[in-house]
Amino acid sequence: MSAPAVLYHFAFHPASRAARLALGEAKIDYGEEPVRPWEDDCPLFELNPSGMPPVLTVTEKGKALTLCEIDAILGWIEERSKGDLLLPSDMAERAEARRLGAWFSRRFTDEVDAVLLHERMEKPLLRLGPPDARMLREGREALRSHLSLLEPLASGREWLAGRRLSQADLIAAGHLSVLDYFGEIAWASWPALKLWYSKLKSRPCFRPLLGDRFPGVHPAPWYADLDF
Amino acid sequence: MSAPAVLYHFAFHPASRAARLALGEAKIDYGEEPVRPWEDDCPLFELNPSGMPPVLTVTEKGKALTLCEIDAILGWIEERSKGDLLLPSDMAERAEARRLGAWFSRRFTDEVDAVLLHERMEKPLLRLGPPDARMLREGREALRSHLSLLEPLASGREWLAGRRLSQADLIAAGHLSVLDYFGEIAWASWPALKLWYSKLKSRPCFRPLLGDRFPGVHPAPWYADLDF
Repeated sequence: MSAPAVLYHFAFHPASRAARLALGEAKIDYGEEPVRPWEDDCPLFELNPSGMPPVLTVTEKGKALTLCEIDAILGWIEERSKGDLLLPSDMAERAEARRLGAWFSRRFTDEVDAVLLHERMEKPLLRLGPPDARMLREGREALRSHLSLLEPLASGREWLAGRRLSQADLIAAGHLSVLDYFGEIAWASWPALKLWYSKLKSRPCFRPLLGDRFPGVHPAPWYADLDF
Repeated sequence: MSAPAVLYHFAFHPASRAARLALGEAKIDYGEEPVRPWEDDCPLFELNPSGMPPVLTVTEKGKALTLCEIDAILGWIEERSKGDLLLPSDMAERAEARRLGAWFSRRFTDEVDAVLLHERMEKPLLRLGPPDARMLREGREALRSHLSLLEPLASGREWLAGRRLSQADLIAAGHLSVLDYFGEIAWASWPALKLWYSKLKSRPCFRPLLGDRFPGVHPAPWYADLDF
């Protein structure tokens, strides 16, 4: 018997959420170690040179393994599941899942999260003062532009990368669900994405995320509503 | 017979270089389509929504496949090679290769490339004026801080992720070789990294990169020297 896996994560960090969703999809039991990566004594600095979540520690064949960053965690889950769980077997969908994962981890993070989540989430956490109206506008504009690229994908396909649920859906949901908590997604404007998100939200892997609460901020009224 | 692969790349784009190195390691024949992603009529916009290289088009079993972004290209090469070429079979090294790849694609890109390569490379290409001395200082400071984290890795291991060459080495070399062209790496300060880089530079996959020339800028004198 292997020791149980432990996930070091921050509940409102998009990639940490993607890790929880993927562990849920794979039905892997794990313990949780919530971390606050902006604090000096965060235990993550001992585990991951970047000091950032998600980090998953596991024991396999008696050997301790530290999986740092979402890339290593998803790769490990996929291999442990003998493939096909997070990456579709169709080659084109597989490439598309990887393209979209990179899109969210780099472009969406830089253009949307670094602006909008900085204003809505990091500023209160780090006591950096009230949000800046100009930056909020800029972040919301960037979010709309990203959603307008995703809407036709969601409308023409069952899942973001094609006919099969893939890690692209879980990574995307990691980002969008945090923004949704803060009421930043006007779902009525994006009907196909809304349908995609409601399918995802109804999966058992999503349930733990719907219980997360950010100190001092109530979730948007529809955040935990499966029928929003 | 499949049609040959075609790589859309920009010679001084770090991830494009990593794609060329990986194709070289895998001994995959491919045609080249150099692109200038900052130009309005760049053909990449038809292929990749991000408008960025690298993109690899291949035909497999009669089906055209477009692999966008380094993630999809490395994944395809690894699977085509039946595993083990770009990701070591040892689980810890595998996770480490993925961690380091993410480190370069995100943190190194944001902290070093976006500052230093912007000043040295994008500004002349886009005619944005001379480099800014303060930004150069900031980028060089960030580069030193990254190299000081990499030096102990290179000193304690055969390759960056462990005993086996992995995609982490190729991704790292994609970034460092562009900076080296511009004379930004003081190799004498980083003896273990220098040894690692010279091993990599001597591999056949590296040869095409050593012939690249940036308009109006001679490479550092040691750039193409295998015995630097």
